[in-house]
Amino acid sequence: MNELPERLIPESPEPTLRSRSEGAENWLYRPITCLDHGFVYLVDYMGNDDAIVQAARVSYGKGTKRVSEDRGLIRYLRRHSHTTPFEMVEFKFHCKMPIFVARQWIRHRTASVNEYSGRYSEMSNEFYVPESSVLAKQAKGNRQGRGESLTAEQQKRVLALLKEDYDRSHGHYREFIDDMDFARELARIGLSVANYTEWYWKIDLHNLMHFLRLRMDAHAQYEIRVFADAMARILKDAVPIAFEAFEDYQLNSMQFSGLETKFFETHSWPMKPEAAEKEILEAFKNKRETQEFLEKLKKLNLISSS
Amino acid sequence: MNELPERLIPESPEPTLRSRSEGAENWLYRPITCLDHGFVYLVDYMGNDDAIVQAARVSYGKGTKRVSEDRGLIRYLRRHSHTTPFEMVEFKFHCKMPIFVARQWIRHRTASVNEYSGRYSEMSNEFYVPESSVLAKQAKGNRQGRGESLTAEQQKRVLALLKEDYDRSHGHYREFIDDMDFARELARIGLSVANYTEWYWKIDLHNLMHFLRLRMDAHAQYEIRVFADAMARILKDAVPIAFEAFEDYQLNSMQFSGLETKFFETHSWPMKPEAAEKEILEAFKNKRETQEFLEKLKKLNLISSS
Amino acid sequence: MNELPERLIPESPEPTLRSRSEGAENWLYRPITCLDHGFVYLVDYMGNDDAIVQAARVSYGKGTKRVSEDRGLIRYLRRHSHTTPFEMVEFKFHCKMPIFVARQWIRHRTASVNEYSGRYSEMSNEFYVPESSVLAKQAKGNRQGRGESLTAEQQKRVLALLKEDYDRSHGHYREFIDDMDFARELARIGLSVANYTEWYWKIDLHNLMHFLRLRMDAHAQYEIRVFADAMARILKDAVPIAFEAFEDYQLNSMQFSGLETKFFETHSWPMKPEAAEKEILEAFKNKRETQEFLEKLKKLNLISSS
Amino acid sequence: MNELPERLIPESPEPTLRSRSEGAENWLYRPITCLDHGFVYLVDYMGNDDAIVQAARVSYGKGTKRVSEDRGLIRYLRRHSHTTPFEMVEFKFHCKMPIFVARQWIRHRTASVNEYSGRYSEMSNEFYVPESSVLAKQAKGNRQGRGESLTAEQQKRVLALLKEDYDRSHGHYREFIDDMDFARELARIGLSVANYTEWYWKIDLHNLMHFLRLRMDAHAQYEIRVFADAMARILKDAVPIAFEAFEDYQLNSMQFSGLETKFFETHSWPMKPEAAEKEILEAFKNKRETQEFLEKLKKLNLISSS
Repeated sequence: MNELPERLIPESPEPTLRSRSEGAENWLYRPITCLDHGFVYLVDYMGNDDAIVQAARVSYGKGTKRVSEDRGLIRYLRRHSHTTPFEMVEFKFHCKMPIFVARQWIRHRTASVNEYSGRYSEMSNEFYVPESSVLAKQAKGNRQGRGESLTAEQQKRVLALLKEDYDRSHGHYREFIDDMDFARELARIGLSVANYTEWYWKIDLHNLMHFLRLRMDAHAQYEIRVFADAMARILKDAVPIAFEAFEDYQLNSMQFSGLETKFFETHSWPMKPEAAEKEILEAFKNKRETQEFLEKLKKLNLISSS
Repeated sequence: MNELPERLIPESPEPTLRSRSEGAENWLYRPITCLDHGFVYLVDYMGNDDAIVQAARVSYGKGTKRVSEDRGLIRYLRRHSHTTPFEMVEFKFHCKMPIFVARQWIRHRTASVNEYSGRYSEMSNEFYVPESSVLAKQAKGNRQGRGESLTAEQQKRVLALLKEDYDRSHGHYREFIDDMDFARELARIGLSVANYTEWYWKIDLHNLMHFLRLRMDAHAQYEIRVFADAMARILKDAVPIAFEAFEDYQLNSMQFSGLETKFFETHSWPMKPEAAEKEILEAFKNKRETQEFLEKLKKLNLISSS
Repeated sequence: MNELPERLIPESPEPTLRSRSEGAENWLYRPITCLDHGFVYLVDYMGNDDAIVQAARVSYGKGTKRVSEDRGLIRYLRRHSHTTPFEMVEFKFHCKMPIFVARQWIRHRTASVNEYSGRYSEMSNEFYVPESSVLAKQAKGNRQGRGESLTAEQQKRVLALLKEDYDRSHGHYREFIDDMDFARELARIGLSVANYTEWYWKIDLHNLMHFLRLRMDAHAQYEIRVFADAMARILKDAVPIAFEAFEDYQLNSMQFSGLETKFFETHSWPMKPEAAEKEILEAFKNKRETQEFLEKLKKLNLISSS
Repeated sequence: MNELPERLIPESPEPTLRSRSEGAENWLYRPITCLDHGFVYLVDYMGNDDAIVQAARVSYGKGTKRVSEDRGLIRYLRRHSHTTPFEMVEFKFHCKMPIFVARQWIRHRTASVNEYSGRYSEMSNEFYVPESSVLAKQAKGNRQGRGESLTAEQQKRVLALLKEDYDRSHGHYREFIDDMDFARELARIGLSVANYTEWYWKIDLHNLMHFLRLRMDAHAQYEIRVFADAMARILKDAVPIAFEAFEDYQLNSMQFSGLETKFFETHSWPMKPEAAEKEILEAFKNKRETQEFLEKLKKLNLISSS
């Protein structure tokens, strides 16, 4: 992985009085490969699980301070949306990804970013070529996802056409630059959104978890989920208690609307599937909301199978 | 209410091509009294329920556009945390509140604020004197709330001492200013956090709803809840569809953690109270989380009363 | 311009009690064409020059209120970086631009955005084809700009190759979608960054002026400058006093560093060019800073021509 | 200084692979006393001068990397408002200050904050009692500053009255809490804005420099300037190159408006004072702007003394 900024990797550890995370130290400068040419690695960090507790306790002044209570406090904070102490921990990543992934990523406005510039520098010949296995049809009933696979023949043709277009457009780009000295900021406009870019990305733990909740979701595009999953692996080691609470209270949680809790209160459980569907639809007067509630009830085993 | 900026109230309506909300128009320059000397009123607004739909639909390009589907779309957006279209609507309020309320309020960083300045201008003799009915003891089992009432005698004494302190410190302030021409920025440091301040506060609908969710909550201090409730009254008229969705999916919603949903799935409902408590505690190994889950289950009628 | 959301243009003005700007009203729903397929138009706005003054005066309480002083106050606020009152005015635009322009634009994080989605919807066949006149060589001595023109032959070849690539890649995209029902979120990755996208963009006046200062600058890429200039035209009419102050104190201002002001103080003016260059270089020990200072001095007529 | 969170001070340094600043390490957990009971100390940090350079260079890809050029690059970035690389460095402080100072401080919205809570915890008996030397009259010609000193007698009386009010109100507070078990969130409303509070405050270098530029300014209230100066001392050691550039291009810089640069260009320098004043007033038609320009010209020795 020749993109690593060699000069910056410290030859040996140096002493610090700062808060430290063993799990985070182990991930520094260790890239996780993402897609065909991409990566994510941890460049720097500030704080750890203790730093969250320390910040939260300033509210309580000289209150409880037993270390054994830290886990309970962190879970309490996440359960009750006391998010500010999680802003006290910071992560900085170096990431490389296709432009169409970068475009989704940058919509999260609470991070600091320094990106590679196609105005200053030449764009590489690296373009995202998907694995055949992810080439699928448009999903039914979901306007933005993927459904069943393309045929093997279709997959072959898609990859052939994409590669051909990448090659040709990059060939033209090189001709623009090398033969004409054409201004880089314009020469690159024929390159596709599959071309790779890279950036430094710095964000606090609260906002990173918000990003992960949206981008690890099954509805996020597969190609950005890969990057979110990579950062989640790092977080899990860097702030294990906070990450566990995040999994329990965000990733794996389930929410019920006011209409739904009212329906709960006024019925006996479990219900039979037909009765449930009929009565929910009557109460909600909306097919989609009815369907989503039914799915949650099934998952909770509150719809009897018989 | 002599604080109203008379000059700014338009004598008569003027024509505009902008999006318009009948409900919002009716609230312009109509203060809602809050606490003893405070108020909130709507100074200006941009957008309405349609503006949310309009912004959301830019994602879909030339997709569905039937007006009848607007309500469904707005509910869908809130249900699935698609919050950006709600940022497209903006409200501007003029508010007057005690300093200790302003201090909690300003913690929400996503608004624009212009506050009255005690460096430039003289502080008024208006201080918050609570109604007797809200003078209560420290809550048990909740480190920040209020519990049972003080005795009538205690209430009388509290109010007497507060008023006495307000009067004396403000008398000194006047002496500092009037007799000594003492710099205002220092003269005011003896005034209490019950002294009133005021500001212009501008915020988009997404962030306003986030503010309301936290500050209309039963755990918020009563004195800021009064202001949140006042703004909610205005919102309910200004963006009725969005507000209804907000009530259903945020204010009145209920969330279950991963641990809780797992417990759901692996048990039959309803459960008996003792069995439920015992088994949840065994699974969660945490008294507080057990208690909170039990309360939710009772609310949903999933704990049999017998 | 068939992209305009016809349904949303009000048939006739409606009465409002809100603050109103005659200049802004005239720009509502009137697109300014930008590049070959792009546009910017004003969708909605909140506030005007008066709203800035009104917010600023809340600091002063019941202070001066003569309308004749408004201009002086607005200029004072901008001169002394009192920026919060400018946040009280808001603009919402509908914009259509090539993806590479959108990528620079979105770096400004203080706006609200709803963008067209290539996951939900099909990408159009509109790609940016530059005018021949803007096809230039890489700038010398400036790593990101443009220098002298390409030859006529080179320009012809550039445009031919770009168009060919646009057509071929879009042909493949249509084949992916029409013949294979390939998922839209992947089918589009072969399309170039010259493909057009569009969005709703809402921002307050303070942050919009910050955006304009950076993107109207001679160092900004020509293709985004076109959009910045279009919005500046609208602002000039919408908030004429604030815009004039912005021009005087930001766009046309000149800044001198501590080193430079010190050099000023300790020399007599005007200086001869050779002496100036020699002495500045001695003082600054940096060629680039010397050169930039000399240019400013020449512009101010402080370097004698003889 | 018994407020220091003893448990958190590491007994000995630990090894880290993170970027490190010798100057910052030396300031960790070393409070700087501010006013009578306040302090600021560095709790944690991320990054150093190198981290700024590293982030900036991602734009250039595999460009210049000589260490000797770092200073030039950092100065270039600040000179041309390329501020994003400065966001890559982060500082976390523990601060204790009077409430009226905290109220000015919190207006900077780009930081993360966890504050001591008077709802959860009891307020201390620490109130800001100014030094006699800072007790001054309201400034003339500047609506928010201080002018000449109060008389010694006045100073004595001010301090006596302030202390008396502090004591009495805090006595009442203790009675409310100790004798009545009055809810803390209400019991504290009689305490003045001179009462001390404390918080954790985390901010990136770009935004910290913006804060310092405003709060180290001569127009900022003395009591917050003390805290800004303390943090500046720490920064100067932590990021020496960036701080020097900040001093040169922000703190000590001077700005000229478009009107002023135009006046420069069209006149010969130096000018005589009377002629300058007359001609500037004619050109500017504004007394205040004329006066401010004259002061800058005098500072630059462009007004001849004779």
